[in-house]
Amino acid sequence: MIPKNKIIYFDNAATTKVDDEVVSTFLKSIKEYYANPSSIHVEGAKAARALYLAREKILKLLKLFNHELIFTSGATESNNLAIKGACLKYANRGKHIIVSMIEHPSVLEVAEQLKNEFGFEVSYAKSNEKGVVTLDEIKSLMRKDTILVSVMSVNNETGVINPIEDIAKFLKDYPKTLFHVDACQSIGKVDLNYNDVDLLTFTGHKIHGLKSIGALVKKKGLDLLPLNSGGGQENNLRSGTNDLALSLSLAKALDISIKEMKSANEQISEIKAKIEEYLKENPSLYCLNSNENSIPHILNFSLLTKKAAVVVESLSNNAIMVSSTSACHAHKEPDSYVVYDMTHDEKLSHNTIRLSFDKNNTIEEAEIFIKTLDKIIKEVKQ
Amino acid sequence: MIPKNKIIYFDNAATTKVDDEVVSTFLKSIKEYYANPSSIHVEGAKAARALYLAREKILKLLKLFNHELIFTSGATESNNLAIKGACLKYANRGKHIIVSMIEHPSVLEVAEQLKNEFGFEVSYAKSNEKGVVTLDEIKSLMRKDTILVSVMSVNNETGVINPIEDIAKFLKDYPKTLFHVDACQSIGKVDLNYNDVDLLTFTGHKIHGLKSIGALVKKKGLDLLPLNSGGGQENNLRSGTNDLALSLSLAKALDISIKEMKSANEQISEIKAKIEEYLKENPSLYCLNSNENSIPHILNFSLLTKKAAVVVESLSNNAIMVSSTSACHAHKEPDSYVVYDMTHDEKLSHNTIRLSFDKNNTIEEAEIFIKTLDKIIKEVKQ
Repeated sequence: MIPKNKIIYFDNAATTKVDDEVVSTFLKSIKEYYANPSSIHVEGAKAARALYLAREKILKLLKLFNHELIFTSGATESNNLAIKGACLKYANRGKHIIVSMIEHPSVLEVAEQLKNEFGFEVSYAKSNEKGVVTLDEIKSLMRKDTILVSVMSVNNETGVINPIEDIAKFLKDYPKTLFHVDACQSIGKVDLNYNDVDLLTFTGHKIHGLKSIGALVKKKGLDLLPLNSGGGQENNLRSGTNDLALSLSLAKALDISIKEMKSANEQISEIKAKIEEYLKENPSLYCLNSNENSIPHILNFSLLTKKAAVVVESLSNNAIMVSSTSACHAHKEPDSYVVYDMTHDEKLSHNTIRLSFDKNNTIEEAEIFIKTLDKIIKEVKQ
Repeated sequence: MIPKNKIIYFDNAATTKVDDEVVSTFLKSIKEYYANPSSIHVEGAKAARALYLAREKILKLLKLFNHELIFTSGATESNNLAIKGACLKYANRGKHIIVSMIEHPSVLEVAEQLKNEFGFEVSYAKSNEKGVVTLDEIKSLMRKDTILVSVMSVNNETGVINPIEDIAKFLKDYPKTLFHVDACQSIGKVDLNYNDVDLLTFTGHKIHGLKSIGALVKKKGLDLLPLNSGGGQENNLRSGTNDLALSLSLAKALDISIKEMKSANEQISEIKAKIEEYLKENPSLYCLNSNENSIPHILNFSLLTKKAAVVVESLSNNAIMVSSTSACHAHKEPDSYVVYDMTHDEKLSHNTIRLSFDKNNTIEEAEIFIKTLDKIIKEVKQ
């Protein structure tokens, strides 16, 4: 067994290690406020007040003052609530939606469900040769009955940044079309303006927070059909006992990630550049899928001569953890639909490797990775 | 401010204090297995294996071998997924459901949503004068197109135990009618047989576990329309990044609660008997709503001369935390629909107090409570 501190973990887009400070916040809350925030006694009121402050803090950190925050169990629930909740609520305005081809499965599957179970029509926005979903592409798909557009801010496989500020600005002229942004891979990593976004999704465990806590931030006044009905928590939009400890831990994780963003990104950029250099030096072996338009945290490339599954396993046996496609659909599809949409090349999309870095990674780890990959790529047969 | 150790917390049906061992399990998991169980590298596989074992452990603890377990964010999600998921999946078999009048809001509101948004018909099973939903009542409401019956095992306000084993046995003759049981207040507190139940809901934070983790246990082969679509976790029935740490912590909490059940119940029964004795000695002041058919953990009574809200606040100012109605709909309804269904008396249902005990409560606390309540009831004006 490999000791934990010897593992090189380059799979941070799947999930990150929890910060110690986040754990402390969580534990402190469990001890201090164990009452139910909905209880009417003093202890309940204390918990309710702390919950309110956590909510306000997150909105302030995101510089959003015309929005409200709904705590959820994570990004998948947030995406489901945002899209199904809005579309089922506003179906009388139209039953057409646009989602990009390169969305996370928790957006794509929801679109499928709306189509198959609830009679919606779905148009898919393609990414261009750089992997970007352009404003022009969205414009070309707009219809009179389009009630929702969903484009992620940063793609989880390639790290590509989409022009969500431009799309949001464009959609301001379409008051009945809501704009949803899955911001799981951008929040805490790149500074974007979400002010004109109607529905914004993010989650704790991608920013060194805990799992099972995420948020859906929505424009004030916007209504949704709740997926979880019940006690009426979260303004009747998401019932269920409030989890104050996890909510406070999310606010803490976001706070840290924003404070540390600049210094972390500098360090991560060096790691990415180092590995990118090696990949570019070997154009017969590798093809880069991430480009200058991507966040430093993600580096995606295709293997030209070997099978990704074999190389990932071999790296794993050498204590280096990386992904082929994303973890979220690892058991469903062996190839990357994201890379396919960009390259239209089946072979490339079958053999992608995603490296995803965080502030805990070092340049030494990058060097070990390069050496190990180079050795593996020359040794493995497939 | 009252020091934490001086607070008498009699609101355990709303939420319980987390056991230290549960917190340790959670923390250990965060450190040992921080990879995503869906990731294909060694660390992901380790996490996936641990998740599998947690699932198996819980089913074994519940003595259920013909069922599967879906981890959820808690009871509200479990109830929503069970009822909406099953009814929307099997709507072609019929669109009539039966739910008891005394269910938790996360069942009643789902029934309303099915009625208002999806064209279902709902029959409400009343409780009898003892607060029990009888088999005869269910029988009287059965129709050819009834596809689901939902009756909670133990009511969260009165602690009354419903005859779910009898109802389950009866429904075995109706193969197209599914039986859902919200077992949040029975699991870990009273030993019931859930073997013939199709859909079973419970949650961690009612048994000294953490919040944001619950389960839906369902008969093998039963399908559901997922509320959270996406990466396909939990057999495609509940997508979202698996939370191994919370899942392990739930297994631990359940394990402890079952092991300690007998001794805890003896201690809790003494506390309840002590307070019940005082209430019975003062029939002009109090009317008992819990009876011999209720679990020891919950004692519900109505005030005959004062307002419950005033007394709850006054108790709270004396560092004693109790509930009027349940925390889950504290902000929605000032009176208890559960007590009203049993008593048909508006005054009684307006002034209910719920005490809910746990293994950390002591007989000395019961004595302090009695003295304090007696003083308050004589002093407060309303």
